[in-house]
Amino acid sequence: MNDSPDTPVTVIGLGRMGQALAGAFLKAGHPTTVWNRTTSKADKLVAEGARLAPTVGDALRAGSLTVICVTDYRAMHELLAASDIELDGTMLINLTSGDSAQAREAARWAEQHGAHYLDGAIMAIPPAIGTAEAVILHSGPRPDFEAHRPTLDALGTVTYLGADHGLASLYDVAGLAMMWSVLNAWLQGTALLRTAGVDAATYAPFAQQIAAGVAEWLPGYAEQIDAGSFPAEVSALETDARAMTHLIEQSEAVGVNAELPRLIKTMADRSIAAGHGGEQYPVLIEEFGIPGDH
Amino acid sequence: MNDSPDTPVTVIGLGRMGQALAGAFLKAGHPTTVWNRTTSKADKLVAEGARLAPTVGDALRAGSLTVICVTDYRAMHELLAASDIELDGTMLINLTSGDSAQAREAARWAEQHGAHYLDGAIMAIPPAIGTAEAVILHSGPRPDFEAHRPTLDALGTVTYLGADHGLASLYDVAGLAMMWSVLNAWLQGTALLRTAGVDAATYAPFAQQIAAGVAEWLPGYAEQIDAGSFPAEVSALETDARAMTHLIEQSEAVGVNAELPRLIKTMADRSIAAGHGGEQYPVLIEEFGIPGDH
Repeated sequence: MNDSPDTPVTVIGLGRMGQALAGAFLKAGHPTTVWNRTTSKADKLVAEGARLAPTVGDALRAGSLTVICVTDYRAMHELLAASDIELDGTMLINLTSGDSAQAREAARWAEQHGAHYLDGAIMAIPPAIGTAEAVILHSGPRPDFEAHRPTLDALGTVTYLGADHGLASLYDVAGLAMMWSVLNAWLQGTALLRTAGVDAATYAPFAQQIAAGVAEWLPGYAEQIDAGSFPAEVSALETDARAMTHLIEQSEAVGVNAELPRLIKTMADRSIAAGHGGEQYPVLIEEFGIPGDH
Repeated sequence: MNDSPDTPVTVIGLGRMGQALAGAFLKAGHPTTVWNRTTSKADKLVAEGARLAPTVGDALRAGSLTVICVTDYRAMHELLAASDIELDGTMLINLTSGDSAQAREAARWAEQHGAHYLDGAIMAIPPAIGTAEAVILHSGPRPDFEAHRPTLDALGTVTYLGADHGLASLYDVAGLAMMWSVLNAWLQGTALLRTAGVDAATYAPFAQQIAAGVAEWLPGYAEQIDAGSFPAEVSALETDARAMTHLIEQSEAVGVNAELPRLIKTMADRSIAAGHGGEQYPVLIEEFGIPGDH
């Protein structure tokens, strides 16, 4: 049976993110039980209608599903090892930050104790929780996700990635790599343009347009990777490498940090040295991937 | 007087890009004169109606404006130093790749010889020339750009950046830095997801969405840079740095190259060490910019 707005839920861990999660459940009308080691963190939620459970075991029994959002996986394992806890038949949704190996290990551990387990990653800041802007990634058994999706929808834009419990954390860090890379490239350009007296606000729309435009190429470039064939339909890597030299020299000439440009060129040069200079940019996947995996 | 479709134009340099430029002018109806050291490169254009000039001087006299697209600035200076050349009153539009200093120096040189001079950068591959997809950046005196814009429009989406002749090449390399950064972050994520059996085509739309989403933050973040004030409205740099550690450890744990994640964290750590851990990400501009410029 799938969840409804009457489905009771539990939130364990009331840091800024946990408080936001519990608040979004309350706002959606779910009877909400919370637990936190420092009970004062529950005060505001209790005032809004949440019930503060005296123990983790009590909290777990109260909800049809329990969302866990604590410091790390170790903290989660410690909390759930308490003596009064019965995990059999519970539905755990772990939104604690961690890596794919920790997620897969937690899933095995939960299965051994008879619990249903979904792993998740929150790609949002606490104030965005409960709005469509908050992207929340889930991985684990699809039936568990589908059964509880109506409840999880209260938290933001929820996405199901696949049965492998490690997927949520992998997509999470991959998305973060994209975020910081776009920001750093924008900072590189902003620093370059500032040497000519161009302010950041003038340059930003240009950077935005390039980032969004290049992002549109990715699905097409992905086909080359999946096919393992990289014909230079647009341009050859050795042509890119010459322009990378321009970027490095231009940065150095105006006194802007050239570490990022140099890393870009180092990876391209390695691929060219491996004989891929006449192929297209996505052939660089071999520099990013596992050595010897191709 | 502004240009019209009858305005005669000249293109000097018939590599792949120069041929594409001349072809676009011909297609738009402009009487087009071309010159190249190796005359056979003009054969196809002549068959399409171009006139092959015997000398650079003759070519320059034929056009109301002359587009130059050669190997580098040195090649341009050599060509224009020939004895039969009268530069006084000519309109030169240099689309040769180079850096901002070369562009500014060429502008001074052209001015000394009485020529009008615009610098430019082509952010496109030759087959895109003549379509809206070809973005062509121009910098130099605005009246010269405006007078010839109707003619330049035949080449693609032309953009005017400002009076400083160095701007076109600065925007060009800044855009390239963004391009390679989006691609590398996507490759990083693709490599991570492949370790879980996720193919590149499955991951690409996610990467595309993140890149386009983060790009939307740039105008807002730019305001912080221009104001020189970086309150942690969304998150503090030290919070980002903890997530960067996750990215590095996750990459290393599954055997994916972690050079890019490590560079991201190195730059953040430096800013935190300088006392900016409680500020927001754009404070990193100080790591990218000129040391001591703030």
